Amino acid sequence: MPHIDFKNDLPGIRSALAFSPQTAEPLGALAEILLRSDEGLTRAERELIATYVSYLNDCFYCHHSHGEIACIYLDGDKQLVDQVKKDFDKAAISEKLRSLLAIAAKVQKGGKFVAEEDIEKAKQNGATDIDIHDTVLIAAAFCMFNRYVDGLNTTAPTDMASYPLRARQIAEHGYGNHIYTQRQPA
Amino acid sequence: MPHIDFKNDLPGIRSALAFSPQTAEPLGALAEILLRSDEGLTRAERELIATYVSYLNDCFYCHHSHGEIACIYLDGDKQLVDQVKKDFDKAAISEKLRSLLAIAAKVQKGGKFVAEEDIEKAKQNGATDIDIHDTVLIAAAFCMFNRYVDGLNTTAPTDMASYPLRARQIAEHGYGNHIYTQRQPA
Repeated sequence: MPHIDFKNDLPGIRSALAFSPQTAEPLGALAEILLRSDEGLTRAERELIATYVSYLNDCFYCHHSHGEIACIYLDGDKQLVDQVKKDFDKAAISEKLRSLLAIAAKVQKGGKFVAEEDIEKAKQNGATDIDIHDTVLIAAAFCMFNRYVDGLNTTAPTDMASYPLRARQIAEHGYGNHIYTQRQPA
Repeated sequence: MPHIDFKNDLPGIRSALAFSPQTAEPLGALAEILLRSDEGLTRAERELIATYVSYLNDCFYCHHSHGEIACIYLDGDKQLVDQVKKDFDKAAISEKLRSLLAIAAKVQKGGKFVAEEDIEKAKQNGATDIDIHDTVLIAAAFCMFNRYVDGLNTTAPTDMASYPLRARQIAEHGYGNHIYTQRQPA
Protein backbone atom coordinates (compact mmCIF):
# COMPACT_ATOMS: atom_id res chain seq x y z
CA MET A 1 0.00 0.00 0.00
CA PRO A 2 1.34 3.47 -0.82
CA HIS A 3 2.72 5.49 2.10
CA ILE A 4 0.32 8.36 1.41
CA ASP A 5 -3.22 8.63 0.04
CA PHE A 6 -2.71 9.53 -3.63
CA LYS A 7 -6.48 9.85 -4.14
CA ASN A 8 -6.14 7.75 -7.31
CA ASP A 9 -5.37 4.13 -8.13
CA LEU A 10 -2.87 4.72 -10.93
CA PRO A 11 0.20 2.45 -10.93
CA GLY A 12 3.81 3.36 -10.17
CA ILE A 13 5.08 6.89 -10.64
CA ARG A 14 1.82 7.92 -12.27
CA SER A 15 0.01 7.85 -8.90
CA ALA A 16 2.51 10.36 -7.49
CA LEU A 17 2.47 12.51 -10.62
CA ALA A 18 -1.33 12.72 -10.58
CA PHE A 19 -1.24 13.55 -6.85
CA SER A 20 1.16 16.45 -7.44
CA PRO A 21 0.57 17.98 -10.90
CA GLN A 22 2.78 20.98 -10.10
CA THR A 23 5.89 18.83 -9.79
CA ALA A 24 4.68 16.39 -12.47
CA GLU A 25 5.09 19.06 -15.11
CA PRO A 26 8.87 19.61 -14.86
CA LEU A 27 9.42 15.89 -14.17
CA GLY A 28 7.58 14.98 -17.39
CA ALA A 29 9.45 17.66 -19.33
CA LEU A 30 12.78 16.36 -18.01
CA ALA A 31 11.96 12.76 -18.99
CA GLU A 32 10.83 13.91 -22.41
CA ILE A 33 14.10 15.72 -23.15
CA LEU A 34 16.42 13.15 -21.59
CA LEU A 35 14.82 10.06 -23.08
CA ARG A 36 13.46 11.26 -26.40
CA SER A 37 15.99 13.77 -27.67
CA ASP A 38 17.24 12.77 -31.10
CA GLU A 39 20.51 14.63 -30.67
CA GLY A 40 23.49 12.40 -29.89
CA LEU A 41 22.40 9.21 -28.14
CA THR A 42 19.57 7.23 -29.72
CA ARG A 43 16.28 6.71 -27.90
CA ALA A 44 17.18 3.04 -27.47
CA GLU A 45 20.49 3.99 -25.82
CA ARG A 46 18.78 6.51 -23.55
CA GLU A 47 16.15 4.00 -22.44
CA LEU A 48 18.77 1.30 -21.90
CA ILE A 49 20.72 3.61 -19.58
CA ALA A 50 17.51 4.44 -17.69
CA THR A 51 16.57 0.75 -17.49
CA TYR A 52 19.99 -0.29 -16.26
CA VAL A 53 20.17 2.35 -13.52
CA SER A 54 16.62 1.47 -12.42
CA TYR A 55 17.66 -2.18 -12.26
CA LEU A 56 20.68 -1.28 -10.11
CA ASN A 57 18.35 0.68 -7.85
CA ASP A 58 16.08 -2.39 -7.73
CA CYS A 59 13.08 -0.34 -8.84
CA PHE A 60 10.74 -3.01 -10.24
CA TYR A 61 8.25 -0.60 -11.79
CA CYS A 62 10.90 1.55 -13.50
CA HIS A 63 13.19 -1.14 -14.85
CA HIS A 64 10.26 -3.06 -16.31
CA SER A 65 8.58 0.06 -17.70
CA HIS A 66 11.69 1.47 -19.33
CA GLY A 67 12.96 -1.97 -20.32
CA GLU A 68 9.81 -2.45 -22.39
CA ILE A 69 10.20 0.96 -24.01
CA ALA A 70 13.84 0.18 -24.88
CA CYS A 71 12.62 -3.13 -26.31
CA ILE A 72 10.30 -1.32 -28.74
CA TYR A 73 13.17 0.82 -30.04
CA LEU A 74 15.26 -2.37 -30.36
CA ASP A 75 12.64 -4.01 -32.59
CA GLY A 76 11.51 -6.32 -29.81
CA ASP A 77 14.93 -7.62 -28.73
CA LYS A 78 13.99 -8.34 -25.11
CA GLN A 79 17.00 -10.62 -24.69
CA LEU A 80 19.33 -7.68 -25.29
CA VAL A 81 17.52 -5.59 -22.67
CA ASP A 82 17.77 -8.43 -20.15
CA GLN A 83 21.44 -8.95 -20.96
CA VAL A 84 22.19 -5.26 -20.37
CA LYS A 85 20.52 -5.50 -16.97
CA LYS A 86 22.32 -8.66 -15.96
CA ASP A 87 25.79 -8.00 -17.39
CA PHE A 88 26.23 -5.32 -20.03
CA ASP A 89 29.86 -6.38 -20.56
CA LYS A 90 28.57 -9.42 -22.43
CA ALA A 91 25.79 -7.61 -24.32
CA ALA A 92 25.86 -7.10 -28.10
CA ILE A 93 26.09 -3.31 -27.88
CA SER A 94 28.54 -0.72 -29.19
CA GLU A 95 31.73 -0.07 -27.24
CA LYS A 96 30.53 3.51 -26.86
CA LEU A 97 27.33 2.45 -25.11
CA ARG A 98 29.25 -0.08 -23.02
CA SER A 99 31.54 2.64 -21.68
CA LEU A 100 28.58 4.98 -21.07
CA LEU A 101 26.77 2.25 -19.10
CA ALA A 102 29.92 1.91 -16.99
CA ILE A 103 29.71 5.65 -16.24
CA ALA A 104 26.00 5.33 -15.45
CA ALA A 105 26.78 2.53 -12.96
CA LYS A 106 29.28 4.81 -11.21
CA VAL A 107 26.75 7.66 -11.06
CA GLN A 108 24.22 5.27 -9.50
CA LYS A 109 26.66 4.70 -6.62
CA GLY A 110 27.43 8.42 -6.33
CA GLY A 111 28.75 11.21 -8.52
CA LYS A 112 32.28 11.04 -7.11
CA PHE A 113 32.73 7.45 -8.27
CA VAL A 114 33.04 8.61 -11.89
CA ALA A 115 36.77 8.57 -12.62
CA GLU A 116 38.80 10.37 -15.26
CA GLU A 117 39.60 6.95 -16.82
CA ASP A 118 35.88 6.20 -17.26
CA ILE A 119 35.47 9.45 -19.17
CA GLU A 120 38.60 8.90 -21.24
CA LYS A 121 37.45 5.43 -22.24
CA ALA A 122 34.04 6.73 -23.32
CA LYS A 123 35.68 9.47 -25.39
CA GLN A 124 38.03 6.94 -27.02
CA ASN A 125 34.95 4.93 -27.93
CA GLY A 126 33.42 7.93 -29.67
CA ALA A 127 31.30 9.52 -26.94
CA THR A 128 30.96 13.29 -27.26
CA ASP A 129 30.72 15.72 -24.35
CA ILE A 130 26.96 15.88 -24.92
CA ASP A 131 26.71 12.06 -24.81
CA ILE A 132 28.60 12.01 -21.52
CA HIS A 133 26.52 14.87 -20.13
CA ASP A 134 23.28 13.14 -21.06
CA THR A 135 24.44 9.80 -19.66
CA VAL A 136 25.32 11.35 -16.30
CA LEU A 137 22.05 13.26 -16.15
CA ILE A 138 19.90 10.27 -17.21
CA ALA A 139 21.59 8.12 -14.55
CA ALA A 140 21.21 10.87 -11.93
CA ALA A 141 17.58 11.49 -12.89
CA PHE A 142 16.72 7.82 -12.49
CA CYS A 143 18.29 7.88 -9.03
CA MET A 144 15.56 10.48 -8.41
CA PHE A 145 12.66 8.79 -10.24
CA ASN A 146 13.42 5.40 -8.63
CA ARG A 147 13.51 6.94 -5.14
CA TYR A 148 10.29 8.84 -5.83
CA VAL A 149 8.54 5.61 -6.90
CA ASP A 150 9.82 3.42 -4.06
CA GLY A 151 10.13 6.07 -1.34
CA LEU A 152 6.36 6.59 -1.51
CA ASN A 153 5.79 2.84 -1.94
CA THR A 154 3.74 3.23 -5.11
CA THR A 155 2.10 0.08 -6.44
CA ALA A 156 3.68 -1.71 -9.39
CA PRO A 157 1.31 -3.74 -11.61
CA THR A 158 1.90 -7.46 -11.19
CA ASP A 159 0.23 -8.12 -14.55
CA MET A 160 3.37 -8.12 -16.68
CA ALA A 161 1.30 -7.78 -19.85
CA SER A 162 0.48 -4.21 -18.86
CA TYR A 163 4.09 -3.02 -19.24
CA PRO A 164 4.48 -3.53 -23.01
CA LEU A 165 1.03 -2.00 -23.58
CA ARG A 166 2.02 1.09 -21.65
CA ALA A 167 5.45 1.17 -23.29
CA ARG A 168 3.80 1.36 -26.69
CA GLN A 169 1.86 4.47 -25.59
CA ILE A 170 5.02 6.19 -24.30
CA ALA A 171 7.01 5.27 -27.42
CA GLU A 172 4.26 6.77 -29.56
CA HIS A 173 3.25 9.82 -27.53
CA GLY A 174 6.12 10.60 -25.16
CA TYR A 175 6.29 11.57 -21.51
CA GLY A 176 3.81 14.44 -21.48
CA ASN A 177 1.71 14.56 -18.34
CA HIS A 178 -1.52 13.73 -20.13
CA ILE A 179 0.12 10.36 -20.76
CA TYR A 180 1.27 9.90 -17.20
CA THR A 181 -2.02 10.53 -15.57
CA GLN A 182 -4.27 8.68 -17.99
CA ARG A 183 -5.55 5.29 -16.99
CA GLN A 184 -3.81 2.12 -18.03
CA PRO A 185 -5.13 0.74 -21.33
CA ALA A 186 -7.67 -2.03 -20.79
CA MET B 1 38.80 19.98 -13.75
CA PRO B 2 35.34 19.16 -15.11
CA HIS B 3 34.99 15.86 -16.98
CA ILE B 4 33.65 17.63 -20.08
CA ASP B 5 34.24 21.02 -21.69
CA PHE B 6 31.30 23.14 -20.49
CA LYS B 7 32.45 26.08 -22.64
CA ASN B 8 31.95 28.36 -19.63
CA ASP B 9 33.65 28.89 -16.29
CA LEU B 10 30.57 29.05 -14.09
CA PRO B 11 30.81 27.22 -10.76
CA GLY B 12 29.00 24.06 -9.65
CA ILE B 13 25.72 23.02 -11.24
CA ARG B 14 25.52 26.29 -13.13
CA SER B 15 28.28 25.19 -15.54
CA ALA B 16 26.23 22.11 -16.48
CA LEU B 17 22.97 24.06 -16.71
CA ALA B 18 24.52 26.64 -19.02
CA PHE B 19 26.02 23.84 -21.14
CA SER B 20 22.62 22.19 -21.56
CA PRO B 21 19.86 24.83 -21.51
CA GLN B 22 17.23 22.33 -22.71
CA THR B 23 17.55 20.23 -19.56
CA ALA B 24 18.25 23.30 -17.39
CA GLU B 25 14.71 24.52 -17.92
CA PRO B 26 12.82 21.64 -16.26
CA LEU B 27 15.56 21.28 -13.62
CA GLY B 28 15.18 24.94 -12.67
CA ALA B 29 11.38 24.66 -12.67
CA LEU B 30 11.57 21.59 -10.42
CA ALA B 31 13.87 23.32 -7.93
CA GLU B 32 11.63 26.39 -7.93
CA ILE B 33 8.50 24.39 -7.03
CA LEU B 34 10.16 22.02 -4.57
CA LEU B 35 12.18 24.60 -2.66
CA ARG B 36 10.06 27.72 -2.88
CA SER B 37 6.48 26.52 -2.67
CA ASP B 38 4.68 28.22 0.20
CA GLU B 39 2.18 25.38 0.56
CA GLY B 40 2.86 23.07 3.50
CA LEU B 41 6.55 23.02 4.39
CA THR B 42 8.29 26.36 4.84
CA ARG B 43 11.12 27.44 2.57
CA ALA B 44 13.52 27.02 5.49
CA GLU B 45 12.34 23.42 6.00
CA ARG B 46 12.63 22.66 2.29
CA GLU B 47 16.16 24.05 2.09
CA LEU B 48 17.20 22.21 5.27
CA ILE B 49 16.04 18.90 3.75
CA ALA B 50 17.96 19.70 0.53
CA THR B 51 21.05 20.71 2.53
CA TYR B 52 20.95 17.60 4.70
CA VAL B 53 20.61 15.18 1.76
CA SER B 54 23.41 16.99 -0.10
CA TYR B 55 25.57 16.66 3.01
CA LEU B 56 24.83 12.90 3.18
CA ASN B 57 25.80 12.66 -0.50
CA ASP B 58 28.98 14.58 0.34
CA CYS B 59 28.26 17.17 -2.35
CA PHE B 60 30.34 20.15 -1.20
CA TYR B 61 28.88 22.65 -3.65
CA CYS B 62 25.26 21.72 -2.95
CA HIS B 63 25.36 21.45 0.84
CA HIS B 64 27.15 24.77 1.15
CA SER B 65 24.94 26.50 -1.43
CA HIS B 66 21.65 25.30 0.03
CA GLY B 67 22.91 25.58 3.61
CA GLU B 68 23.46 29.29 3.03
CA ILE B 69 20.00 29.70 1.53
CA ALA B 70 18.45 27.91 4.52
CA CYS B 71 20.48 30.21 6.75
CA ILE B 72 18.86 33.28 5.20
CA TYR B 73 15.36 31.91 5.87
CA LEU B 74 16.49 31.12 9.45
CA ASP B 75 17.51 34.73 10.06
CA GLY B 76 21.20 33.90 9.88
CA ASP B 77 21.20 30.91 12.26
CA LYS B 78 24.17 29.10 10.70
CA GLN B 79 24.67 27.03 13.84
CA LEU B 80 21.27 25.43 13.35
CA VAL B 81 22.09 24.57 9.74
CA ASP B 82 25.40 23.00 10.82
CA GLN B 83 23.68 21.09 13.62
CA VAL B 84 21.10 19.65 11.20
CA LYS B 85 23.95 18.45 8.97
CA LYS B 86 25.92 16.90 11.80
CA ASP B 87 23.12 15.42 13.90
CA PHE B 88 19.56 16.61 13.39
CA ASP B 89 18.39 14.61 16.41
CA LYS B 90 20.02 17.24 18.63
CA ALA B 91 18.91 20.26 16.56
CA ALA B 92 16.38 22.81 17.85
CA ILE B 93 13.78 21.98 15.20
CA SER B 94 10.14 20.86 15.30
CA GLU B 95 9.40 17.18 15.85
CA LYS B 96 7.65 17.26 12.49
CA LEU B 97 10.79 18.39 10.67
CA ARG B 98 12.89 15.90 12.65
CA SER B 99 10.74 13.00 11.48
CA LEU B 100 10.78 14.30 7.88
CA LEU B 101 14.59 14.54 7.95
CA ALA B 102 14.63 10.90 9.09
CA ILE B 103 12.56 10.02 6.00
CA ALA B 104 14.88 12.09 3.79
CA ALA B 105 17.88 10.16 5.16
CA LYS B 106 16.21 6.87 4.22
CA VAL B 107 15.41 8.15 0.72
CA GLN B 108 19.07 9.14 0.29
CA LYS B 109 20.03 5.49 0.89
CA GLY B 110 17.27 4.24 -1.42
CA GLY B 111 13.51 4.47 -1.74
CA LYS B 112 12.87 1.06 -0.21
CA PHE B 113 14.50 2.05 3.08
CA VAL B 114 11.51 4.24 3.97
CA ALA B 115 9.46 2.16 6.44
CA GLU B 116 5.82 2.36 7.43
CA GLU B 117 6.96 3.39 10.95
CA ASP B 118 8.87 6.38 9.56
CA ILE B 119 5.71 7.57 7.82
CA GLU B 120 3.54 6.94 10.88
CA LYS B 121 5.89 8.92 13.09
CA ALA B 122 5.87 11.87 10.69
CA LYS B 123 2.07 11.81 10.57
CA GLN B 124 1.87 11.69 14.37
CA ASN B 125 4.11 14.74 14.44
CA GLY B 126 1.71 16.62 12.18
CA ALA B 127 3.09 15.95 8.70
CA THR B 128 0.43 15.89 5.98
CA ASP B 129 0.50 13.66 2.90
CA ILE B 130 1.73 16.67 0.91
CA ASP B 131 4.56 17.29 3.41
CA ILE B 132 5.63 13.65 3.11
CA HIS B 133 5.35 13.72 -0.68
CA ASP B 134 7.45 16.87 -0.89
CA THR B 135 10.06 15.53 1.54
CA VAL B 136 10.50 12.33 -0.49
CA LEU B 137 10.71 14.24 -3.76
CA ILE B 138 13.12 16.90 -2.42
CA ALA B 139 15.39 14.14 -1.07
CA ALA B 140 15.12 12.18 -4.33
CA ALA B 141 15.74 15.30 -6.42
CA PHE B 142 18.91 16.11 -4.50
CA CYS B 143 20.14 12.57 -5.11
CA MET B 144 19.89 13.67 -8.75
CA PHE B 145 21.30 17.20 -8.43
CA ASN B 146 24.23 16.01 -6.28
CA ARG B 147 25.11 13.27 -8.81
CA TYR B 148 24.81 15.75 -11.68
CA VAL B 149 27.22 18.15 -9.95
CA ASP B 150 29.79 15.56 -8.87
CA GLY B 151 29.34 13.06 -11.72
CA LEU B 152 30.56 15.73 -14.15
CA ASN B 153 33.17 16.94 -11.66
CA THR B 154 32.00 20.56 -11.75
CA THR B 155 34.15 23.06 -9.89
CA ALA B 156 33.04 24.28 -6.48
CA PRO B 157 34.24 27.77 -5.47
CA THR B 158 36.80 27.57 -2.69
CA ASP B 159 36.09 31.19 -1.75
CA MET B 160 33.50 30.51 0.94
CA ALA B 161 32.36 34.15 0.88
CA SER B 162 30.81 33.53 -2.53
CA TYR B 163 28.18 31.13 -1.16
CA PRO B 164 26.22 33.58 1.01
CA LEU B 165 26.34 36.17 -1.78
CA ARG B 166 24.88 33.70 -4.22
CA ALA B 167 22.36 32.47 -1.63
CA ARG B 168 21.01 36.00 -1.25
CA GLN B 169 20.33 36.15 -5.00
CA ILE B 170 18.50 32.82 -4.98
CA ALA B 171 16.47 33.75 -1.88
CA GLU B 172 15.42 36.97 -3.60
CA HIS B 173 14.90 35.82 -7.17
CA GLY B 174 14.44 32.04 -7.11
CA TYR B 175 15.77 29.22 -9.24
CA GLY B 176 14.87 30.52 -12.70
CA ASN B 177 17.47 29.77 -15.31
CA HIS B 178 18.46 33.38 -15.79
CA ILE B 179 19.72 33.12 -12.21
CA TYR B 180 21.57 29.87 -12.74
CA THR B 181 23.47 30.93 -15.77
CA GLN B 182 24.35 34.45 -14.72
CA ARG B 183 27.86 35.10 -13.52
CA GLN B 184 28.76 35.04 -9.85
CA PRO B 185 28.37 38.46 -8.19
CA ALA B 186 31.69 40.30 -7.98
